[in-house]
Amino acid sequence: MRLVRFGRRGAERPGMLDREDRIRDLSAYVPDWSGAALGPDALAEIAGLDPAALPPAPEGSPLASPIGRVEKVVGVGPNFQESAQLAGFRINPEPTVFMKAPTAVCGPNDPIELPRLSTRTDWGVELGVVIGSTAKYVTVEQAMEHVAGYTLCNDVTERNLQLQRGGQWFKGKSHDTFAPLGPWLVTKDEMPDWGETTLWLEVNGVRQQEDKAGRMIFKVPYLVSYISRFTRLEPGDVIMTGTPGGVGLSYDPPRFLGDGDRVRLGGDGLGVQEHVCIANWSDNDR
Amino acid sequence: MRLVRFGRRGAERPGMLDREDRIRDLSAYVPDWSGAALGPDALAEIAGLDPAALPPAPEGSPLASPIGRVEKVVGVGPNFQESAQLAGFRINPEPTVFMKAPTAVCGPNDPIELPRLSTRTDWGVELGVVIGSTAKYVTVEQAMEHVAGYTLCNDVTERNLQLQRGGQWFKGKSHDTFAPLGPWLVTKDEMPDWGETTLWLEVNGVRQQEDKAGRMIFKVPYLVSYISRFTRLEPGDVIMTGTPGGVGLSYDPPRFLGDGDRVRLGGDGLGVQEHVCIANWSDNDR
Repeated sequence: MRLVRFGRRGAERPGMLDREDRIRDLSAYVPDWSGAALGPDALAEIAGLDPAALPPAPEGSPLASPIGRVEKVVGVGPNFQESAQLAGFRINPEPTVFMKAPTAVCGPNDPIELPRLSTRTDWGVELGVVIGSTAKYVTVEQAMEHVAGYTLCNDVTERNLQLQRGGQWFKGKSHDTFAPLGPWLVTKDEMPDWGETTLWLEVNGVRQQEDKAGRMIFKVPYLVSYISRFTRLEPGDVIMTGTPGGVGLSYDPPRFLGDGDRVRLGGDGLGVQEHVCIANWSDNDR
Repeated sequence: MRLVRFGRRGAERPGMLDREDRIRDLSAYVPDWSGAALGPDALAEIAGLDPAALPPAPEGSPLASPIGRVEKVVGVGPNFQESAQLAGFRINPEPTVFMKAPTAVCGPNDPIELPRLSTRTDWGVELGVVIGSTAKYVTVEQAMEHVAGYTLCNDVTERNLQLQRGGQWFKGKSHDTFAPLGPWLVTKDEMPDWGETTLWLEVNGVRQQEDKAGRMIFKVPYLVSYISRFTRLEPGDVIMTGTPGGVGLSYDPPRFLGDGDRVRLGGDGLGVQEHVCIANWSDNDR
């Protein structure tokens, strides 16, 4: 299943895509795509419904983040060999793990706000892993039982704030709109081989990143197990698994996002995001 | 006002303490201490009630975290001169900022779980600043308008996981029970001079930390303003403002928490927390 949330900001409804990619309204069946609704039993019930019998969403409904309440966005640092080396990051013997503020989550086609302090805002297409049930100290073998599915992510980063304003990556990772998710959450049964997905990203029509998800160094089951040793993962938590080569920081000279730039990204089975970058954003513009 | 949440886990109710330190039930007036209930208008309404006329909580009700839904726990790195130097941290020209997982929040007297991987779990009494209304790009002068009040925090850290497992502090900061809050949220009107509060912490009856909150390097209004440049602060978010000298890492030889150790901490106007440390914790023990 491809699960979505649609409708205007603050009044989003849960839905799913049918075979013709039309949005079907599921709000009669689930309150939202969050918490227990992402668990295996709840998803099995939804899978038993006939999408064609569900009410269609109003024509032109915008898509929001496919997860209604993300409590934790856990990022994984350098996890693709080329990306890390070119950008000057060291590959650690264990994954580097950080958090992005959940307030950074936005929809798959929302504008990206360039922070007022931005000089070096960078992109990063990633495979997002969506947790479906509580995971604490789970083994690699158990890990996938706790995964609901996958979603496309853009791990947006302001490199100057990340790296040159005093320790810890928080400052460059947590601005509003720095964690676009979606267009949908694809359940794991529909994507049994997540590693075969090719992730790609373009800026103003020029391809910057393209690599298979399976080339990540620390793989999905290991990451879920590893992170669950340090924190309790809950339904709706998202693990961003690291970005392939081709981030702006890795080019010589480096390339960063400016006002009006258009970012498109996608992955097989994950759909496509499209963002316009906006400097001097005011929240009143929404 | 001193706002509390009381009752058994998962069924906590909002309340307040009356002059005799008895818990009064406010669940007829607010759904929980989170979101809009922490805003200035909502708090002004509660301030108009007569505590003596409110139903008392059942005798012996346990206290939970005084905030019902913490979305972000933002930590501030070295912020007291001695603490930083003795523990081997550098004081940056700007605050070091990190996030703790919100799943780490627990009540003021809950046990502290020592992680299975723990070898060096450390304490840190801190002044917690509770956000009352959305703050994004606010000035130092505007900052206090967005603060609901203060709460006592223990910024528990596993030093080995924080410092020696590959970049970023996330791994040592985010375990369950690593962010005890409370016993209460004291509204800012009742603590106009937060800097006069003396913070202290004892392990097994021996005083380890004691210093005035006002001796922090980066002060409360500056921290709120500074952090709001990087992320949107929302009602119920907590800023842990950094710990005074006397963390376990700063002693020679260093001192860390072991199974059965008792931690007590407090601050004038903030109340007292008391925790027992438990190794080999099972969530079934709850």
